[in-house]
Amino acid sequence: MLLGLTGGRLLPSPRRCLLHCRHIKSAATAASGVGDGVLSAFRSICGEEGVSLGEAVREQHGKDESVHRCRPPDVVVFPRCVEEVSALAKVCHKHRLPIIPFGTGTGLEGGVGAVKGGVCFSLRNMEQVLDLHPEDFDVTVEPGVTRKALNAYLRDTGLWFPVDPGADASLCGMAATSASGTNAVRYGTMRENVMNLEVVLADGSIVHTAGKGRRPRKTSAGYNLTNLFVGSEGTLGIITKTTLRLYGIPEAMVSAVCSFPSVQAAVDSTVQTLQAGVPIARIEFLDDVMIDACNRFSSLSYPVTPTLFLEFHGSEQSLQEQVKTAEDITQSNGGSDFQWARDTETRNRLWKARHDAWYAALALRPGCKAYSTDVCVPLSRLPQIIVETKEDLIENRLTGPIAGHVGDGNFHCLMVVDPNNPEEMHRVHLFTERLARRALAMDGTCTGEHGVGLGKRALLCEEMGPVGIQVMRSLKDTLDPNNLMNPGKILQREEP
Amino acid sequence: MLLGLTGGRLLPSPRRCLLHCRHIKSAATAASGVGDGVLSAFRSICGEEGVSLGEAVREQHGKDESVHRCRPPDVVVFPRCVEEVSALAKVCHKHRLPIIPFGTGTGLEGGVGAVKGGVCFSLRNMEQVLDLHPEDFDVTVEPGVTRKALNAYLRDTGLWFPVDPGADASLCGMAATSASGTNAVRYGTMRENVMNLEVVLADGSIVHTAGKGRRPRKTSAGYNLTNLFVGSEGTLGIITKTTLRLYGIPEAMVSAVCSFPSVQAAVDSTVQTLQAGVPIARIEFLDDVMIDACNRFSSLSYPVTPTLFLEFHGSEQSLQEQVKTAEDITQSNGGSDFQWARDTETRNRLWKARHDAWYAALALRPGCKAYSTDVCVPLSRLPQIIVETKEDLIENRLTGPIAGHVGDGNFHCLMVVDPNNPEEMHRVHLFTERLARRALAMDGTCTGEHGVGLGKRALLCEEMGPVGIQVMRSLKDTLDPNNLMNPGKILQREEP
Repeated sequence: MLLGLTGGRLLPSPRRCLLHCRHIKSAATAASGVGDGVLSAFRSICGEEGVSLGEAVREQHGKDESVHRCRPPDVVVFPRCVEEVSALAKVCHKHRLPIIPFGTGTGLEGGVGAVKGGVCFSLRNMEQVLDLHPEDFDVTVEPGVTRKALNAYLRDTGLWFPVDPGADASLCGMAATSASGTNAVRYGTMRENVMNLEVVLADGSIVHTAGKGRRPRKTSAGYNLTNLFVGSEGTLGIITKTTLRLYGIPEAMVSAVCSFPSVQAAVDSTVQTLQAGVPIARIEFLDDVMIDACNRFSSLSYPVTPTLFLEFHGSEQSLQEQVKTAEDITQSNGGSDFQWARDTETRNRLWKARHDAWYAALALRPGCKAYSTDVCVPLSRLPQIIVETKEDLIENRLTGPIAGHVGDGNFHCLMVVDPNNPEEMHRVHLFTERLARRALAMDGTCTGEHGVGLGKRALLCEEMGPVGIQVMRSLKDTLDPNNLMNPGKILQREEP
Repeated sequence: MLLGLTGGRLLPSPRRCLLHCRHIKSAATAASGVGDGVLSAFRSICGEEGVSLGEAVREQHGKDESVHRCRPPDVVVFPRCVEEVSALAKVCHKHRLPIIPFGTGTGLEGGVGAVKGGVCFSLRNMEQVLDLHPEDFDVTVEPGVTRKALNAYLRDTGLWFPVDPGADASLCGMAATSASGTNAVRYGTMRENVMNLEVVLADGSIVHTAGKGRRPRKTSAGYNLTNLFVGSEGTLGIITKTTLRLYGIPEAMVSAVCSFPSVQAAVDSTVQTLQAGVPIARIEFLDDVMIDACNRFSSLSYPVTPTLFLEFHGSEQSLQEQVKTAEDITQSNGGSDFQWARDTETRNRLWKARHDAWYAALALRPGCKAYSTDVCVPLSRLPQIIVETKEDLIENRLTGPIAGHVGDGNFHCLMVVDPNNPEEMHRVHLFTERLARRALAMDGTCTGEHGVGLGKRALLCEEMGPVGIQVMRSLKDTLDPNNLMNPGKILQREEP
């Protein structure tokens, strides 16, 4: 079963691309080793229109949604199938050229920057939904398929893919960064929902992490290669297919908003709701600054206090019970009455406001940039870390509303910063390091779902300790001995 | 928070052990390189009573519950803490001695056999429950703690650890083989429930796969080392601590038995129950031969037709709804009325009968041995593979009742075989290979939860293909370059 999904993104026209290529080719060539021979080889694999040296195209592929500066690749290639990805990778391998996979560019830790130049593999032309098996609750997708495109495709099947990081990211990119988001408390992260991957390795060989075409719901057959590549951020290989678990669309969904007198009260309510066995689908925390920003940006009028956005999935009858239990718990912690979003439109507006938190934060300081940093701690440590972090923000005169997937102990500070003010940028940098170290001191992690990328390599060393880092480095050296796959990400290395 | 759990197992008395050691030391020494110097080093690390050369002790540690023949190690050591495990491993590393970790010996694919001799690390003396955090739903255990011991320990906390492979296995051993069992359809397997591991590597260094003491509910920090070691069957390192996710004990549980006119009807009911979003906790299939054996062995009187054992967890109210939906579905597929097990005692008797399937199968042919083989396929392929497998059994005059975790597409044939009849053993061997290949041809795996061990190494090659096997082999070579960690398991290698 195949479907070509037509994305809204535009390829540069072949004509423009070629003219542009001729213009800047020599500059790129000189610096990077991407010579005429290499470009000819690329063109013979994926056509004239599948190779771009255009400055705008390169710049577009050199940055994500973080504040890490643009690091354009020397050339961008647009393969159309795994065979082309493999052939292109073989050329790169032969010429020792870095390979940087690119999905939608919605990452948050600088994962797509070509810090050593090289070849960006833009995978947007591989956009087929393959092998949907509704009765087995699984589907396989190519890297150009985003989560919204997949769910649109699934609409008539009664199934959906629930992992939702907010951005309309590529599903293979979500696998590569081990993404999660608002629904993870109920449905898990990408780690729990990827069943198999097709990966092109640094030498161009193709591996299926659970064996070609396999999709059992569980397996004990050998090492878990699937979860070695999930979260590897393009540093071990290029993900060219992902097989995902699907879920039945719940009979009913209802959302609610509840305001609390304190962070502690909101978090206590969360822990008690989970302890009570309520299978809550989403439980999102917004601090007073964040809800204020959302109110302004999305024309809402919630009280400006610590707030939970909740969502319940299930049958009509089970929803009643879930909601009653959650209401009893929140009220015993001093929470407000629930404000309801029952119909789809109101519910969508509510979650749009949550997903627009980024823009709401930005609107607090027009002209600034947003930088979302992410940590995760055991649930019981959330109140303390949030209170300390808010004090830190005030003390250091920083704007950083807090929003988080509180059922997982995961939260973000949406730092709003003037990129032209180096002193403020430095203060933000120091703040994010303090935040990560605070999480590490509380048995947590420096990143719950954004990944390491460029921004958290030093923190990863502190988190893992020297033996853990050594094991990670040895895995990288084994699978990518020439350090070609997205070099400079996750692990820091000595320059040769 | 610490608790020493007193297991029922007995150490050989130091006196007996020493006498025995002196008697057979030279024989072991000659064959294996476990010379006096090595033994002295071992004794200086874990005491006289922590080193055993006794034949009975070695034989006890050379086999699991499979039909693979006993392959005793040259010596068994009984470390009491991770530092002793590390020090012992360093001695083994220096002298290039194989290391075989041993938990409870309840494996099913020959994973503990010392096929190249060497040193068995029996971990039963490390039996502490460490760091229980009820409010964070996590706990850390040493390798001597079994799942029943943990759940007994947790009884007053309102929490439990649901993964249940039947045997009262060590939790670290369950991590090592990526075990699962009856509850996996709702709570996942070990892959989804292990948050962190402490592992002693081949050179004796100690790694914490998610960083020392860390226990966030999710993380994107670097490569997923935790799931590289889960399911590695002792071939990459010795698991000395496991941090596990816990769950709230459901308010209510109820079990039921339902008989069906055909395998197809039972499987269709399972798929439709999952599609309807019923959060079923257990849904176990037993074929006519299996239910007949269970009836005889456990004094039950269920109809001798394809049967489902079901269990529902939740609030009283949600149970009513779950049960009603499941009953509607089973009846529409021609299932019988549910036979109920509501009180704890009746429920326990029911599940004891299910867990005793092994002994029930054995009782079909007194004096024989049982051999449980395990495959997993996508749900929709279950009816066909079960029907074909039953035909195969009849055609080849084999006794092999079928029981399975049908919600995951995972099932077992409990082969009952006369170990003194080589011709029958050979027929069983050929049958299990055909069964595994049938699963592979249906997009499945040769093992859903038992692991590869010795028995399925050739099948793993067929399942993964050459590139996948090469990647697995390169990971093994990287982490264990001298092939000391449980050599000969999972991956076949050329003899040096």
